[in-house]
Amino acid sequence: MPEISKKGKRMPASPIRKLVPYADSAKQKGRTVYHLNIGQPDINTPEVALEAVKNYPHQVVEYSHSQGIPSLREKLVGYYKQHDIEVTSDEIIVGAGASEAILFAMNSCFDPGDEIVIPEPFYANYNSFAINAGIEVKPIFSSIDTGFALPPIAEFEKAITDKTKGILICNPNNPTGYLYSKEELETLRDIVKKYDLYLIADEVYREFCYDGNKHYSAMYLEGIEQNVVLIDSVSKRYSACGIRIGYMISKNKELMQTALKFAQARLSPPSFGQVAAEAAMDVGDDYFEANLKEYDARRKVVYESINAMEGAECPMPKGAFYVVAKLPIDDSDKFCQWLLEDFEYENQTVMLAPASGFYSTPGRGKDEVRISYVLKVENMKKSMKCLAEALKVYPGRSG
Amino acid sequence: MPEISKKGKRMPASPIRKLVPYADSAKQKGRTVYHLNIGQPDINTPEVALEAVKNYPHQVVEYSHSQGIPSLREKLVGYYKQHDIEVTSDEIIVGAGASEAILFAMNSCFDPGDEIVIPEPFYANYNSFAINAGIEVKPIFSSIDTGFALPPIAEFEKAITDKTKGILICNPNNPTGYLYSKEELETLRDIVKKYDLYLIADEVYREFCYDGNKHYSAMYLEGIEQNVVLIDSVSKRYSACGIRIGYMISKNKELMQTALKFAQARLSPPSFGQVAAEAAMDVGDDYFEANLKEYDARRKVVYESINAMEGAECPMPKGAFYVVAKLPIDDSDKFCQWLLEDFEYENQTVMLAPASGFYSTPGRGKDEVRISYVLKVENMKKSMKCLAEALKVYPGRSG
Repeated sequence: MPEISKKGKRMPASPIRKLVPYADSAKQKGRTVYHLNIGQPDINTPEVALEAVKNYPHQVVEYSHSQGIPSLREKLVGYYKQHDIEVTSDEIIVGAGASEAILFAMNSCFDPGDEIVIPEPFYANYNSFAINAGIEVKPIFSSIDTGFALPPIAEFEKAITDKTKGILICNPNNPTGYLYSKEELETLRDIVKKYDLYLIADEVYREFCYDGNKHYSAMYLEGIEQNVVLIDSVSKRYSACGIRIGYMISKNKELMQTALKFAQARLSPPSFGQVAAEAAMDVGDDYFEANLKEYDARRKVVYESINAMEGAECPMPKGAFYVVAKLPIDDSDKFCQWLLEDFEYENQTVMLAPASGFYSTPGRGKDEVRISYVLKVENMKKSMKCLAEALKVYPGRSG
Repeated sequence: MPEISKKGKRMPASPIRKLVPYADSAKQKGRTVYHLNIGQPDINTPEVALEAVKNYPHQVVEYSHSQGIPSLREKLVGYYKQHDIEVTSDEIIVGAGASEAILFAMNSCFDPGDEIVIPEPFYANYNSFAINAGIEVKPIFSSIDTGFALPPIAEFEKAITDKTKGILICNPNNPTGYLYSKEELETLRDIVKKYDLYLIADEVYREFCYDGNKHYSAMYLEGIEQNVVLIDSVSKRYSACGIRIGYMISKNKELMQTALKFAQARLSPPSFGQVAAEAAMDVGDDYFEANLKEYDARRKVVYESINAMEGAECPMPKGAFYVVAKLPIDDSDKFCQWLLEDFEYENQTVMLAPASGFYSTPGRGKDEVRISYVLKVENMKKSMKCLAEALKVYPGRSG
């Protein structure tokens, strides 16, 4: 029997999915499990997007353009213009989710052995994509004590070697909920310029900014237009995770021509998803305003509840719909499993994501969890009550 | 400005897409262009598949299981059973097209520097996927003179080195239309066993076998069950290229667990496409019988027309809907461009794929083209007439 690839052996199993059998087993016992472990919103996909798919006019579902349906890319130009991002339809490649867009970007920018710097904690799959592309992630530490702000320049400079070819950020941030300021982005620009790096900016949570804060895109940065790669997705924006439509965007023509070769090899992105994505842009501001209001209320429940628990704390998230909370626990992997396997409060429990999975430095995040506030306020309250009760009786409680 | 990746520089631009601007320009001149260059069938997607999408019952288009919707995989078990292939739903991973399934397979089986042997001419994107995964393709020559039969064992053994970790075949074959016999598959089994290789078998054209020939699957081979990876797709089977649903199938548990980690990293395959793929399996045998009859008629037009042209020849294709034809020309890239740029017959012309793009050995295929017989008989006849007239006046005619 031939060997499995070394690359495949290095691929991490998802830290969240390991817990799925325990969640299933809790449900089999008749328990309500609140899923705060994944970024699957409960918000309806816009009716206009679903309707467009239902009115699909063709008798043959043909390949679309490898770069994406032209009318979709044309309409995206208008969407970005509303966000003061000037792009042309040629500067956009449609992918099967942001996931594929990130792979296009990594494969076009980096070779095996190259290094990219990512502030940790970071979205766990960045590491998987990096392994897929054969590149090395060099994490730099962003701390809960500063609310997960961008680490100082000195930390970047310590991590940068002659193999470093890029920096990747997620803004607003998954898992921390942090929203990078204009000043932080400008700091990044200086580093990117000084070391001539690619800056991959994952901005899929652009619309999810609270307290009146405005999102500052990496596309605004002057002087590094050829270095910036924007990653985007409709999954969260329109609560349409399953349609698998994301975007790789860059003003760097040579890079886009290269990425297009990867896109052409896989022929085309999903047709129905593109139809839905194009129509979804017709939703009015009221869709986003209503959602933001809803998420804001959920956010406040989490923030207030966590900080009211003895020994627990979290910063007020400024964007996305996640927060990383510090809990008085010995080991978040054990704790999250225990919640599903051994705990119940009024026949309910809660599923969280151990933050260890979001750090690439071993040992970090052991007393932290990521909470996705994707359930309605009433359920968020119930799940926070569960968590509070759980912390009172968890055998591995510390402090 | 940072460098483009070496991997990206090595990625070939599609040999077919280079011709697209010339086709567009021919159309702007008011010419009819018969597209025999790509495998985009004109057959309708089954109504039952389109209806299922139109009846999508959910208000939120959620992520599906990373491995694919369970009911789709369960139903596939029944589909394969009808083809005497015994698999369980755990032995199937749903990908965004066969393209993604091939990438899962390559990344799980092979590491950068590993080599795979592929009989050439072969589907051009195999080379792109190999570059993506960092692996080297070692082509062995299958000749039009033997109708593109499997090369003899000696040719395989010459190509196999200590870096060789797999063989990839496409059966029925794109681009040649060749259908491998049971005996040829058993020869492959012996080689795979002797050298302990993976055998990746792309069988997306399973239903397209002519003259009463039966498809012999790599999954039938005894003694190499842990080595075989089946690649499949609904694109051609149900003329649903745009839904982007394909499959990676293997009985090798460790391999499937590894591939699943790649699948989990990208979260899920497209939801609407999976709904369509599941429903499409409800089409009756009459759908395939009608299509096969139609393709068979088209095939005969091509075979008879080509072999009636002076200096031109092609074998009778036994499967898929392609044929590689040898033409009396100096250079198929030039010829295919000339057809679009400088030729017209009664204001019509034809777009073909230069076969050079299907060989990885430089210089091969210069007097060959791939013809996809994906147009209705009347148009196939018109396009063959165009080709015959073109060969009479092509300035680079040889022989």
